[in-house]
Amino acid sequence: MKLHILGCYAATPRTLTNPTAQILEIKNHMFLIDCGEGTQVQLRKSKVKFSRIKHIFISHLHGDHFFGLPGLISTFRLLGRDSEMHVYGPKGIKEAITLLLKLGDAWTNFPLVFHELTAKETEVIYEDDSVSVETIPLNHRVYTNGFLFKEKLGERKLNIEATENHKIDRSEYQNIKNGKDITLDNGQVIANFELSFDPPKPKSYAYCSDTAYKPEIIPQIKDADVLYHESTFLDSEEHLSGKTKHSTAKEAATIAKDADIGTLILGHYSTRYKSIELFKEEAQTIFDNVELADDGKVFEF
Amino acid sequence: MKLHILGCYAATPRTLTNPTAQILEIKNHMFLIDCGEGTQVQLRKSKVKFSRIKHIFISHLHGDHFFGLPGLISTFRLLGRDSEMHVYGPKGIKEAITLLLKLGDAWTNFPLVFHELTAKETEVIYEDDSVSVETIPLNHRVYTNGFLFKEKLGERKLNIEATENHKIDRSEYQNIKNGKDITLDNGQVIANFELSFDPPKPKSYAYCSDTAYKPEIIPQIKDADVLYHESTFLDSEEHLSGKTKHSTAKEAATIAKDADIGTLILGHYSTRYKSIELFKEEAQTIFDNVELADDGKVFEF
Repeated sequence: MKLHILGCYAATPRTLTNPTAQILEIKNHMFLIDCGEGTQVQLRKSKVKFSRIKHIFISHLHGDHFFGLPGLISTFRLLGRDSEMHVYGPKGIKEAITLLLKLGDAWTNFPLVFHELTAKETEVIYEDDSVSVETIPLNHRVYTNGFLFKEKLGERKLNIEATENHKIDRSEYQNIKNGKDITLDNGQVIANFELSFDPPKPKSYAYCSDTAYKPEIIPQIKDADVLYHESTFLDSEEHLSGKTKHSTAKEAATIAKDADIGTLILGHYSTRYKSIELFKEEAQTIFDNVELADDGKVFEF
Repeated sequence: MKLHILGCYAATPRTLTNPTAQILEIKNHMFLIDCGEGTQVQLRKSKVKFSRIKHIFISHLHGDHFFGLPGLISTFRLLGRDSEMHVYGPKGIKEAITLLLKLGDAWTNFPLVFHELTAKETEVIYEDDSVSVETIPLNHRVYTNGFLFKEKLGERKLNIEATENHKIDRSEYQNIKNGKDITLDNGQVIANFELSFDPPKPKSYAYCSDTAYKPEIIPQIKDADVLYHESTFLDSEEHLSGKTKHSTAKEAATIAKDADIGTLILGHYSTRYKSIELFKEEAQTIFDNVELADDGKVFEF
């Protein structure tokens, strides 16, 4: 898994900071998560190929999370895209994007499929052989979902040495990868674990932005390898985080600790603070493994 | 008059080029003309104070001319604006912006006044004591207006030396500025031209983007000091300019020549060309005084 942070600052774009957008590379997918104004320029800087993006997940309809979407969709058209594009986001997103394209008499020449979300409970919104995506209902001023991206358990890895020692025919290899025991011509049964290795542990990534402190999400994101959790404020501005339904670094760290997360990545910083290091320092008083998102940064897990 | 080019390239924003937006400083106004994605970042770079912008003119509803507007309006709110903001643009702009704000539950805390345009003939859309703005109906794939900004003739300038020689009382100064002759106590009439100088010649700026070659605009923009005219293509791509209803550099120069323009500024370049100097070279085969717009450039006239 690889996470490209395209933008991770709260509110509006500034000369040197961008609003929220990120690309999650997972099992050969390039998922775009949120799409603030300027995302297409950030994408160009990141060298991610536009054509590899087929699924866009929008957490909520505040401008700093989706005002880059109409422009990005127009650009896909200019680039001659013809493959399907799927957009997952709150109800209303289809009307907004459709209206903007219609006003410019600019229909897409590729299928643009909207999956509008309204559920208050978690739901699986995307699934294939290798990965699933489910919503994480959050608590913000408007209807908002985080997203939990989970790899599926892959095939077992063949122990080539063992299969050759037992002179097992290649036609059985797929069965072994699928976890089956093998019966030799002499009737001897070889247990699968002698012929294969465990597949890599599937990884998971939880994206939670924007939200007030919401411990109810903990069971769902329990043991996730990586949690991106917004920390708009520091504890000193807790009064503002309550009012605006954002979180502090301390609250994000508390979620990470209570959910036994592997790595916590902080982001969505208010631009009032002199240094984002302050967020890390505060979070680390609660939880050790904290990383700071920053525009252009790439994390590999 | 001062013209800040915030962005002047065709189509979508790229790492180093921005779609259309410019600020015209005229008679103490800061008029924003068009608002492509990324305009607010370009505005920040230009150091233009956001609060000084009170009128926004949108030529047409293609994304590269207005996808920056919802974000800019949201930013005005975040900056605590409370004074009126007037937006002039094609019918539909109000619905689009209102819908986007509504979806984010983000109403403005300042009066946002839309002036929707539908007329096919020119009309005066803004006027005060010092300046007027009229539409220039253009020929593009969607309903499009250019804008003609005209200073009004100012007051005459007082000839202080002459008024003092004639011992004219200060209470007459405004009358002199207004062009009146003055009768002295002894009955002698002093002609106004002896007591004052002509005011500076009022300046005018014509903005024409996007449009196919449209010579019908020439009478309206005749003798304008400055014409910004789109030149998406060079003459070698004339087949494309016809199809997409854009202009070539040669066509822009022909308009400038036939309208006796002072200075022609070219812009809205297709990004297919290696150097924008090519546009200047082509235009100068027709018309001498050609300048090239470029992002961040400021022209003073």
